[in-house]
Amino acid sequence: MVRYTLEDAIYLENLPAIKEILEEEPSLIDGLDKDGVMMPFLAAKTGNLDIVKYIVEYSRASMNIYDDNHRSMLHYASMSGNVPTCQYLVERVGMSIVEGDNDLVTPLDIAHDNKYFDLEEYYESVLGVGLEQMYKNPIRTGFFPDPSICRVGNDYYMVNSSFIYYPCIPVSHSTDLVHWRIIGYAITNPAWANLDELEGGRGYWAPDISYYNGKFYITATYRLNDDGNVYRKQIVVSSTNPEGPYSKPAIIDEDGIDPSIFNDDDGRRYMLLNRGARIFELSEDATTQISKAKLLFYGDNKRAPEGPHLLKKDGYYYLFEAEGGTGPGHRITVSRSKELMGTYTPCPYNPIMRQTNESAIIQRCGHGKPVQTQNGDWYMVYLCGRKIGEGYSLLGRETALDPITWTKDGWPLVNNLKGPSNLQKKPDLPETVWENEYKDDFKESYLSTEWLFPRVPEMDGIVLENSYVKIKGSVYDLDSIKAKNILLRRQTSFKFSADTCLRMPKLKAGQNMGMTCYYDENTYLKFGVYRLEDKSERFVLKVEERIGDDYISYPDIELDETKSFLYLRVDTHFLKRSFSYSYDGRHYTKYLHLDNVYYLCDEGIKKGKRFTGAMLGLYVYGGEHQKNLDTRFEKPLYGEFDYFNYNPEM
Amino acid sequence: MVRYTLEDAIYLENLPAIKEILEEEPSLIDGLDKDGVMMPFLAAKTGNLDIVKYIVEYSRASMNIYDDNHRSMLHYASMSGNVPTCQYLVERVGMSIVEGDNDLVTPLDIAHDNKYFDLEEYYESVLGVGLEQMYKNPIRTGFFPDPSICRVGNDYYMVNSSFIYYPCIPVSHSTDLVHWRIIGYAITNPAWANLDELEGGRGYWAPDISYYNGKFYITATYRLNDDGNVYRKQIVVSSTNPEGPYSKPAIIDEDGIDPSIFNDDDGRRYMLLNRGARIFELSEDATTQISKAKLLFYGDNKRAPEGPHLLKKDGYYYLFEAEGGTGPGHRITVSRSKELMGTYTPCPYNPIMRQTNESAIIQRCGHGKPVQTQNGDWYMVYLCGRKIGEGYSLLGRETALDPITWTKDGWPLVNNLKGPSNLQKKPDLPETVWENEYKDDFKESYLSTEWLFPRVPEMDGIVLENSYVKIKGSVYDLDSIKAKNILLRRQTSFKFSADTCLRMPKLKAGQNMGMTCYYDENTYLKFGVYRLEDKSERFVLKVEERIGDDYISYPDIELDETKSFLYLRVDTHFLKRSFSYSYDGRHYTKYLHLDNVYYLCDEGIKKGKRFTGAMLGLYVYGGEHQKNLDTRFEKPLYGEFDYFNYNPEM
Repeated sequence: MVRYTLEDAIYLENLPAIKEILEEEPSLIDGLDKDGVMMPFLAAKTGNLDIVKYIVEYSRASMNIYDDNHRSMLHYASMSGNVPTCQYLVERVGMSIVEGDNDLVTPLDIAHDNKYFDLEEYYESVLGVGLEQMYKNPIRTGFFPDPSICRVGNDYYMVNSSFIYYPCIPVSHSTDLVHWRIIGYAITNPAWANLDELEGGRGYWAPDISYYNGKFYITATYRLNDDGNVYRKQIVVSSTNPEGPYSKPAIIDEDGIDPSIFNDDDGRRYMLLNRGARIFELSEDATTQISKAKLLFYGDNKRAPEGPHLLKKDGYYYLFEAEGGTGPGHRITVSRSKELMGTYTPCPYNPIMRQTNESAIIQRCGHGKPVQTQNGDWYMVYLCGRKIGEGYSLLGRETALDPITWTKDGWPLVNNLKGPSNLQKKPDLPETVWENEYKDDFKESYLSTEWLFPRVPEMDGIVLENSYVKIKGSVYDLDSIKAKNILLRRQTSFKFSADTCLRMPKLKAGQNMGMTCYYDENTYLKFGVYRLEDKSERFVLKVEERIGDDYISYPDIELDETKSFLYLRVDTHFLKRSFSYSYDGRHYTKYLHLDNVYYLCDEGIKKGKRFTGAMLGLYVYGGEHQKNLDTRFEKPLYGEFDYFNYNPEM
Repeated sequence: MVRYTLEDAIYLENLPAIKEILEEEPSLIDGLDKDGVMMPFLAAKTGNLDIVKYIVEYSRASMNIYDDNHRSMLHYASMSGNVPTCQYLVERVGMSIVEGDNDLVTPLDIAHDNKYFDLEEYYESVLGVGLEQMYKNPIRTGFFPDPSICRVGNDYYMVNSSFIYYPCIPVSHSTDLVHWRIIGYAITNPAWANLDELEGGRGYWAPDISYYNGKFYITATYRLNDDGNVYRKQIVVSSTNPEGPYSKPAIIDEDGIDPSIFNDDDGRRYMLLNRGARIFELSEDATTQISKAKLLFYGDNKRAPEGPHLLKKDGYYYLFEAEGGTGPGHRITVSRSKELMGTYTPCPYNPIMRQTNESAIIQRCGHGKPVQTQNGDWYMVYLCGRKIGEGYSLLGRETALDPITWTKDGWPLVNNLKGPSNLQKKPDLPETVWENEYKDDFKESYLSTEWLFPRVPEMDGIVLENSYVKIKGSVYDLDSIKAKNILLRRQTSFKFSADTCLRMPKLKAGQNMGMTCYYDENTYLKFGVYRLEDKSERFVLKVEERIGDDYISYPDIELDETKSFLYLRVDTHFLKRSFSYSYDGRHYTKYLHLDNVYYLCDEGIKKGKRFTGAMLGLYVYGGEHQKNLDTRFEKPLYGEFDYFNYNPEM
């Protein structure tokens, strides 16, 4: 008899040979083929039911295994299109049709994309829903942390943390809970923002939006630097219009984070905030604290209890909290009491949302708030982070959505305790798909709500003119909290291509401008045109990185100053970034490739507060020349950009 | 103003000073005092409510902290006896009154032991039950793994794995589910045991006991060494009496482990076994497989799914499984189906039993079987392991008990999903407390059921005579699977003192006898009298260890051969052991102290299968002299022991 390797025996679908090999040496099932694929996956890919059954029922293999791309046995079996084998894995092994790999591709997607109609039909019969009636998590990708939500009529409104970014605290709107658009901000008045002195990662934390008596109320923590005794206060703003403008922030001088407003049935109003869930009463206009804070309940997990939200339903006060810290241990717990002031009993099913699969891409799930639809259904928005590489959250903390079901004994479960869903049935709501604002040609007279600034820009810092955005050169470089006019948007996808066209500038020595991939003043890269400061005063293209205490400058290349335009392009694939340029916008020349921009991730370096996510955009650095400018004789440097094009690959 | 340290300010209960210190340097709350006690614990120990509140609500401290002895804030607060402070920690922070430290001492015990009657009364009012109506887990300490249970009338019967120990598979009886006594064994006929060739850790694995039509049925896996193609078979024995004798084992040649018998309502009988839960039909007498095995359901966790048990209740087949491996990831999951053959749906509340607190002493919880009492209550027996030091399970896998509650949607929860209980309300059953058999004076004509042997002893290996146990010298030493007549009992407590009295023996060169602390043939120690093999032929007291490939011999001391008796004593404190001797049983001389007998733990070394636990007992090694004995002229060596006294400190 020929002696096969296990790999060969699987490829040949020779079950007797597989049995003989594994009976003799059971551990061979844990081996890899030359491409690093585990034997059970090879077997699943054949679609051969007898072989799959034998491996499941008689081999040492576990069925909670994933490949490097987080693909399961069912992903591989789905590639074969074999219905009985996939059915066996679903019904007998209990594998999920809707668990995504690292690209959030599910077995259902594989059946669909390969046009395995029978298999897709089987999957849809199990799910009771087809792919086109489903949505993917996160619903809001990139820097959209700490979501809070409220419904008014048929409209949904969400706020997210903005930290030191301006305008402060985005307010977003949706009709279907899945598709969202920023419609305004809680603080748009530069005089009210108070961001200028704050280090990256401070500023407006974890806001809450609620509706009371015809007005929208937004509260948030204003987080100062660490150098004073008081470093956390709460603010409250209100408006009759969800998009604003909102009132001047009222300050509530109570320590804690994650404030939310709870309006009880009796007309009394309260603020909740951490640690745990502390509560105090608010004045009718919610601008003033009128009682001392009291602990309702610390939390069920008891580590970093935060994000408290109260919900009154069916005679109970339900208290939702985020616990475990906003890293891998993050979770949502709930407790309840018949009386507002307690005693609160924790839910036996806690945590009601947690990612327990360490190798899944969606991690850090917690900090949620429930909302009931006009149809009576319940949903939870919550934050998550997708990890890549060795656990880097490049896109920061994002917003996810999952249904809440209520148990017969009256407890809310998020996604039926399965953790975050990758693919989920759409809410039964009228769908509105916004046109994605990926290309900005700066033809409008105002900036799109997609754009943000680290802290407040100069009054004359940004000018929209002749379908150009003109950015005034900052006197301080990006490594200073005094840097101004840095025009940024969220990175919302692990893979993207972004390009811009700049009018070839006339730079003085030491000035530079171009694109930036940005996390905060400690960690960013610049990709731009430079007039070198040395004697040569050469005009060059260059990439510079700041990674904490390290400043890294890559070899430059000379540019042709006589051209009218310069096109810059950044291509991104997870932590890799490539930089190209062009004089005509059609023929690009590759300039540089960076293998690992880990420093643009939350976990990138240990310095300051890192809770935001990777951004990208445009900057102009005016340098010493701009600083010492005698404006009677010379105009300040304005860098001019024709468009900014962000092409995410979803 | 005097500048206090935080420690001083806490001792002085000076809240303004505490506030000032922590506002200036919040991280000081994470500091330790000179004894290594964390600041929040110091504060809790004062019982000062204002200080505790401030630390809970305003400091950085988490409330899921434990000291090295796994004591919580509530343990410390309970030491103060202050009711309002303890009440605050219970009701507002959600701390547990019944969570044990490493000695399983709970806040309730502290209140009780300190005679803080008000506090104990408050705790009892919260629990609805007093300390005297509670029991502690594990209910069966030491080597009692893989419990299976059945009730017949008002009597409960349990079986546990015995591996290579003889007699095989202990059958225990209880009337209250808490107090158990071994009443017999599934295999007592030496000819049926088939243990002689097996390495330590093989033999009879994970038995199940059930009752059908007037007979008790016990099934188990017979696990062979790894050197053949077939290394796992199932056995079935039956008896009309729970204590036996049981029938000759019927062999069922199906691969897998953890068989259990399920008798359906229609009179058909089935065997379940892993991987996952596979099922096949049995003949009416359960001795023969009459259908092919089919996978019911692999499991919800999908790693090492085993220990399947079926329960039919209210129109559902409930399938219980142990998953995650019998280490720290161990858990119990459940799924159900309206049809025996599936499809099974996993419980949304899975795992229904798991220890999620990594620092708790009770770990490795899983492998359970439900039982309903005659009063309609439900309980689960399951295995657990208590870890000490760096995670060593010295006492092996033990048996724990917790109540099952059924949710309104018909799912069973063990201990309401709180993981293993330390202190739990006793079942509402007639209590029977057995007299503990800790001292054996060998006055009976048969050995107590507490005694075990590694494999079958020689026919004339053990003689009970004149209130002595006489042990025939083994031709092979303890490091051989051929060693005979090693008389062992389970170590059931982390702290114990054990002593014996031996009649001063006449040993030939190379012979030795005494006490042993034993795990298997790879890991044990001997503490005995030796006639040295060298020319001196000195008669000495000595300790020798075997730790895998290492044999360690400690310096001996000369003994006085003219004395009639020698008393040996081992004192144990977790991994430490001290060895003493005496000629009169009153005045002991300390001979040796060992700091770390880690090799007596399941995790001690990596060699073979280690699933049992530490044992202790008596041995006699006859050596080469015994081997070459000409029995026409000389009698074999018998070591004579007057008693064996095992004093566990509970």
